[in-house]
Amino acid sequence: MPDNIYTLKLQDQKARRGEIITSNGIIQTPAFMPVATTATVKALTCEDLEECGAEIILGNTYHLYLRPGVDIIRSLGGLAKFNAWHKPTLTDSGGYQVFSLKDISKISDEGVNFQSHYDGSYHFFTPEKVVELQLAIGADIMMVFDQCVPYPADKKLATEGVRRTYDWAQRSKAHYDNLISSHKFKNTNYLFGIVQGSVYKDLRTQSAEQIVSLDFSGNAIGGLSVGESKNEMEDILAHTIQFLPEGKPRYLMGIGYPEDILMAVSYGIDMFDCVLPTRNARTGNVFTSEGPLVYRNADNSMDDQPLDPNCDCKVCRRYSRAYIRHLYNQSEITGMVLASYHSTYFYQNLMRNIRKAIEEKRFEQFQKEFLSQYRKGLE
Amino acid sequence: MPDNIYTLKLQDQKARRGEIITSNGIIQTPAFMPVATTATVKALTCEDLEECGAEIILGNTYHLYLRPGVDIIRSLGGLAKFNAWHKPTLTDSGGYQVFSLKDISKISDEGVNFQSHYDGSYHFFTPEKVVELQLAIGADIMMVFDQCVPYPADKKLATEGVRRTYDWAQRSKAHYDNLISSHKFKNTNYLFGIVQGSVYKDLRTQSAEQIVSLDFSGNAIGGLSVGESKNEMEDILAHTIQFLPEGKPRYLMGIGYPEDILMAVSYGIDMFDCVLPTRNARTGNVFTSEGPLVYRNADNSMDDQPLDPNCDCKVCRRYSRAYIRHLYNQSEITGMVLASYHSTYFYQNLMRNIRKAIEEKRFEQFQKEFLSQYRKGLE
Repeated sequence: MPDNIYTLKLQDQKARRGEIITSNGIIQTPAFMPVATTATVKALTCEDLEECGAEIILGNTYHLYLRPGVDIIRSLGGLAKFNAWHKPTLTDSGGYQVFSLKDISKISDEGVNFQSHYDGSYHFFTPEKVVELQLAIGADIMMVFDQCVPYPADKKLATEGVRRTYDWAQRSKAHYDNLISSHKFKNTNYLFGIVQGSVYKDLRTQSAEQIVSLDFSGNAIGGLSVGESKNEMEDILAHTIQFLPEGKPRYLMGIGYPEDILMAVSYGIDMFDCVLPTRNARTGNVFTSEGPLVYRNADNSMDDQPLDPNCDCKVCRRYSRAYIRHLYNQSEITGMVLASYHSTYFYQNLMRNIRKAIEEKRFEQFQKEFLSQYRKGLE
Repeated sequence: MPDNIYTLKLQDQKARRGEIITSNGIIQTPAFMPVATTATVKALTCEDLEECGAEIILGNTYHLYLRPGVDIIRSLGGLAKFNAWHKPTLTDSGGYQVFSLKDISKISDEGVNFQSHYDGSYHFFTPEKVVELQLAIGADIMMVFDQCVPYPADKKLATEGVRRTYDWAQRSKAHYDNLISSHKFKNTNYLFGIVQGSVYKDLRTQSAEQIVSLDFSGNAIGGLSVGESKNEMEDILAHTIQFLPEGKPRYLMGIGYPEDILMAVSYGIDMFDCVLPTRNARTGNVFTSEGPLVYRNADNSMDDQPLDPNCDCKVCRRYSRAYIRHLYNQSEITGMVLASYHSTYFYQNLMRNIRKAIEEKRFEQFQKEFLSQYRKGLE
């Protein structure tokens, strides 16, 4: 079993300032991981990500398994060599993707049979196979294969999800420990468990206790931001996080909007990921300190302001809304690049400011000030 | 009339090493202008272009007139402020585009009536209007509205094109001189003439003498690389260039492949533009010192070499063919960005090497050596 990878440096109420050490580098937390599903953050280069200050990105086992294929990645020296991102990478297990292919996947206790969304070919994922795939990919942090139930899920389905998630987590951990102790892989690829349970507190308690008992290198809360209300999400998060040990990283999967991140940090979450900054950027929306901006709108066509007047990123220092709106209007790739860069920087800058505020024991005040300016833009 | 903008610094046989001075900066020649039709080089940022060493880019009056519209560009301070490219820009007149819209354009001696390829709306371009549009856009170098005939063109059509090109050049020049002398615009936006005449040497002679007599700030050769053979192109270029004055820039429009550029430099051409490096990059082809590389091909899927082993651009220093091929295969924007960056750098680097070779009076030798390595890749 690997040594503890997390150091809690200081706390400001429940908000945590820590760091995670991996063989590809140190991650300052709370951290936001830009999503690089297919081994690239869409529209950005590694240089862009470094400039924005990202210290870890998130790949997806399902996608990388189908293309380019795990053998190719492994033969080229692993993911960090393949995509030239020399800092840490976390891979999601692909469970979420496989389950979202409802019509072309079939689940059993053994695993999931699914068809590729590329060519319809058949594939079978088991918890053991997903651990092996991620070890071969060479991710610094790997997620167990879990069962994420849709929202809303009746209690029977949610209970089934928790049972299977625990069963699979046990199998994943046993297989991982076995592979490491037999020296087939180095123990520098850390495995995280995932807590499920939908919006049922008793199930969340049960799942958290089960997952924590397996002593993973970190613990994630899955199955949130899948359709429930913001209040429900906060309620379940606040409940679940009590059961997660303080000495390990706590990762809230697939979240979220800036206001969600601030809320979750206030409860002690350390890691986040979300497609929002880059996906929205490609469809004409960016995040700014004054709230979301629909930069594609015609009222920006003569606006020489930067996307965010309070941002010091290289896009905001040089380009106007009018120009980026024009590029969007012309379907120019460059527009997607500039908008994606800004929003990625905005998220990384938010995390930098969060970390600094925690260090200076003024996180609550920072959260209030940020939201007061941010929500003006929402009105 | 503006002062002379061109300085011929030295010659190596007929190859010329010079510079063009504009109010937005100096251009070292021979120069290659990346094509920024809609005010951006596709998939690249201004920072990328600066890193590659581009000193001038090429916009298109037809496209910018339709979108975002000349009023928007002008009200935002002109093209250089609008697109944040602070070095020189040349705008093509849009003649080539308007004539290529055969089915939705109608030509008369007065001008061309055409429909927008965006929305079918009707527009009318005259030589005078095109000068005004380009002055409003604020391009450093503006091209007259000419008539480029298709290939092959019978002699009657080619003669008609030469006549109209001369007529329109006279009207353009008169209107330009009038606008400048009435102080409606500053005389820092230079107007270039264009020689036509298809593949008929007598018509090329006539057109060159007519255009040169109008004393533009520079002279371009248009109507080549429109379907004629490489031999015909070289033959017509070699013939036409004799009539162009040595004290002004000579621009070969829309060309071309690396071997074409080398050939044309050997006859004394100073300026080039072409969509090839960026367009090919987006469709899975890049230029390398060892010839064109179809990087999208499956045989690159496990190749950890850079796109060009002899290139020191930031893409070749970091990313492998296998990775960029994977990105292409996944339709990832990042793949287009990386490939476009490399090929743009490759062209700028070729021009740097050409300029250095001329300075060191070894251009012919450089051309031979370059082609010997480049053509190995073609075999």
